[in-house]
Amino acid sequence: MRKAVYPGSFDPVTLGHLDVIERGAKTFDELVVSIARASGKKALFTVEERVELVTGLVAPWENVTVDTFEGLAIEHVRACGANVILRGIRTVSDFEYEFQMALTNRTMDAGIETVFVMSDEKYSFLRSSLIKEVAALGGNVNAMVPPVVEEALRKKLHP
Amino acid sequence: MRKAVYPGSFDPVTLGHLDVIERGAKTFDELVVSIARASGKKALFTVEERVELVTGLVAPWENVTVDTFEGLAIEHVRACGANVILRGIRTVSDFEYEFQMALTNRTMDAGIETVFVMSDEKYSFLRSSLIKEVAALGGNVNAMVPPVVEEALRKKLHP
Amino acid sequence: MRKAVYPGSFDPVTLGHLDVIERGAKTFDELVVSIARASGKKALFTVEERVELVTGLVAPWENVTVDTFEGLAIEHVRACGANVILRGIRTVSDFEYEFQMALTNRTMDAGIETVFVMSDEKYSFLRSSLIKEVAALGGNVNAMVPPVVEEALRKKLHP
Amino acid sequence: MRKAVYPGSFDPVTLGHLDVIERGAKTFDELVVSIARASGKKALFTVEERVELVTGLVAPWENVTVDTFEGLAIEHVRACGANVILRGIRTVSDFEYEFQMALTNRTMDAGIETVFVMSDEKYSFLRSSLIKEVAALGGNVNAMVPPVVEEALRKKLHP
Amino acid sequence: MRKAVYPGSFDPVTLGHLDVIERGAKTFDELVVSIARASGKKALFTVEERVELVTGLVAPWENVTVDTFEGLAIEHVRACGANVILRGIRTVSDFEYEFQMALTNRTMDAGIETVFVMSDEKYSFLRSSLIKEVAALGGNVNAMVPPVVEEALRKKLHP
Amino acid sequence: MRKAVYPGSFDPVTLGHLDVIERGAKTFDELVVSIARASGKKALFTVEERVELVTGLVAPWENVTVDTFEGLAIEHVRACGANVILRGIRTVSDFEYEFQMALTNRTMDAGIETVFVMSDEKYSFLRSSLIKEVAALGGNVNAMVPPVVEEALRKKLHP
Repeated sequence: MRKAVYPGSFDPVTLGHLDVIERGAKTFDELVVSIARASGKKALFTVEERVELVTGLVAPWENVTVDTFEGLAIEHVRACGANVILRGIRTVSDFEYEFQMALTNRTMDAGIETVFVMSDEKYSFLRSSLIKEVAALGGNVNAMVPPVVEEALRKKLHP
Repeated sequence: MRKAVYPGSFDPVTLGHLDVIERGAKTFDELVVSIARASGKKALFTVEERVELVTGLVAPWENVTVDTFEGLAIEHVRACGANVILRGIRTVSDFEYEFQMALTNRTMDAGIETVFVMSDEKYSFLRSSLIKEVAALGGNVNAMVPPVVEEALRKKLHP
Repeated sequence: MRKAVYPGSFDPVTLGHLDVIERGAKTFDELVVSIARASGKKALFTVEERVELVTGLVAPWENVTVDTFEGLAIEHVRACGANVILRGIRTVSDFEYEFQMALTNRTMDAGIETVFVMSDEKYSFLRSSLIKEVAALGGNVNAMVPPVVEEALRKKLHP
Repeated sequence: MRKAVYPGSFDPVTLGHLDVIERGAKTFDELVVSIARASGKKALFTVEERVELVTGLVAPWENVTVDTFEGLAIEHVRACGANVILRGIRTVSDFEYEFQMALTNRTMDAGIETVFVMSDEKYSFLRSSLIKEVAALGGNVNAMVPPVVEEALRKKLHP
Repeated sequence: MRKAVYPGSFDPVTLGHLDVIERGAKTFDELVVSIARASGKKALFTVEERVELVTGLVAPWENVTVDTFEGLAIEHVRACGANVILRGIRTVSDFEYEFQMALTNRTMDAGIETVFVMSDEKYSFLRSSLIKEVAALGGNVNAMVPPVVEEALRKKLHP
Repeated sequence: MRKAVYPGSFDPVTLGHLDVIERGAKTFDELVVSIARASGKKALFTVEERVELVTGLVAPWENVTVDTFEGLAIEHVRACGANVILRGIRTVSDFEYEFQMALTNRTMDAGIETVFVMSDEKYSFLRSSLIKEVAALGGNVNAMVPPVVEEALRKKLHP
């Protein structure tokens, strides 16, 4: 059985993330979306809120589950019994960052492979950070996130 | 069962290609290395020679087979009953070319996913075209190709 | 009156080119699509065929005309009485090539400015050369070119 | 009449910004330099100081005016009655960032087009942030900003 | 005599830095590794600790010395009586940043040249910031830093 | 004594090449400009013509000499008794190509180091191939090459 883990902040989950999840669900037997509990950058949504949003949105795929992790992603992948890390790439700057992460992870566990899919080109410009900025300024983000996330952003930013 | 196809010219196969094959063999249940019979660029080795070289080198992996194809890679992938195209990426220029190919293939068959692995950084500079140039000028390519390919290059270029 | 020239090979015109033309037609008072009579690369379509295809497709925009040129694009722009060269950019490699062309043109006539628009991201992977390759191999290009160009490719490549 | 808006922080305005303004003034009938009142990054100069510096420097161009905005740049562009956003690009990393902004803006208002000009290559390395860093360390910035800005930096950083 | 300065934060020194130092030591008659006393980013190690670590590690090269500097690197280079700044480049994003720094330095002193070497590809993914992140999370960094730095990171982060 | 070799086609030598030569002449005790006798691409100027043009232009620098080579550049460097290859970089695509060449050379002789300088940004867009194209179309290249080369291009292309 081929099991992959898709780690990230998902703060919040975007249409681009869901596109990667759909591609991962087709490519592997089992896919775990793993939400980082802590990260360098301060999160807008709590881990619980992020888990709830993602869980609702991945319900259509039977082989996708959601969990959280702390510390090094690679140790979580190993603890999950998976041997694949799934990541999406869209742009050259993504590529360089992901390359560094993949190679760093490889020095820590050569048995776990990072594989990349390319998200749909219509999502190539989406970044959670930009979406939060646009939403905070009152801009319309309905081409960037699913309706439930749009609603969550509104409640969070303009309560 | 997860089956992937790794299409290319393999003219000739390099240590970088073998690194990608090893990663693909670990990540999928079955991997087919598919050698293009014809391509825009004139090949140094005949298809038969390329098949023979690759077949010998992939013998250690039980789940890897070798075949050839003509025409569009995506149609060959479909004909193989696979739903994954495997490709390696090493550099930014690779990335842009592969991105274009992956998106072009997607417009032709959205059911087939292109996934990327990153080859070992020590192979990041290898290109078959550069290797042929170095070998033609009498340079030493033993850090770039396996011994059997080094020997084949010598016979072909300095008979 | 703001007049711009969009020079290129258009061999053949793609949905990406039409997207750039639409943006140029909105941004300037008059837009001339200028087709290069000769170029380093051998063309698939004659200049007359390319002019006919483009002319039919730009009919919807009243402020767009089509002509041809030989020699340096910048001299044609000047001869047209325009002071703007319009170009589309989609990718990093585009960007570097276009940067070189724009700076080279600037050394020849500092009074003519090159301006860039970004085509729709769903056309970011289109290149005439790749489309011809796919069409030659019998692939489906209907997501890449308008129907009239698809038909012209079929007649030219599989008569 | 072709009206464009050039939005930015201009903290402070550099020779590179002025080069973009000059190109925009030649290409469009009217150009508005719009200074962001607030931004993620803490500004060195107040909005009033930045407006004063830019206003003095754009005096030579009759068709250039200066204003300020809060919130989304795209809404300000619309409020100005303009349909073009002008931006300069110099480097690959600029390009990717600007691409994201342009596509994000397009999802919010498809009627407003972002056009890019390339600033003179001798300004390709200028960034306001780097200039402030150099000036703070006592370095000479007279090849990077106009004299009036050099003087303003001196007063602000070494009063 | 050809003297070069290699300026940086070295917080902490990595195997990639040592690779650049080795190349510089071979290429120039004298090489000074100059550690920035202050920088925009908060350092993990004090300047004294960083000097001690680097000094121990460069002992094998007779023509390499270590010092510290405050303010502009270029003024320190001049004060050292050197006319070359040595830098390593590994990736496209490095390249753009280094390009900006080199051109900025050139506007301040055209007599000092920045030269670049490419570190070994097996260190292409190393960054001090990523290493500190991995070490803070308890990850194994022994393929990234020399043993003495690994030990210093452990004492500093998990005392 | 620090001796470097600057290998290339120099078909023809440009202001950008001369800028690199000037930087190399300042940085090393001795610099050899080595012109490739044969290359994949067909040359416009004979080797003798290229040697004559370069020799005349480097006369101002006492420590610069000119020679030619066949076969692998790295073997020529070794035969010259040099241990440094000098190259200029200007753009991201340069960077990736040069990176590959430098790493390939390193696998053949780890004792020879490739060092890079950045040419003046006003030459960042110059390429011999583009210059020949412009000159062939009758364009003005006097901002790209020295007068003697401009004259040579005129005689060669429009005799």
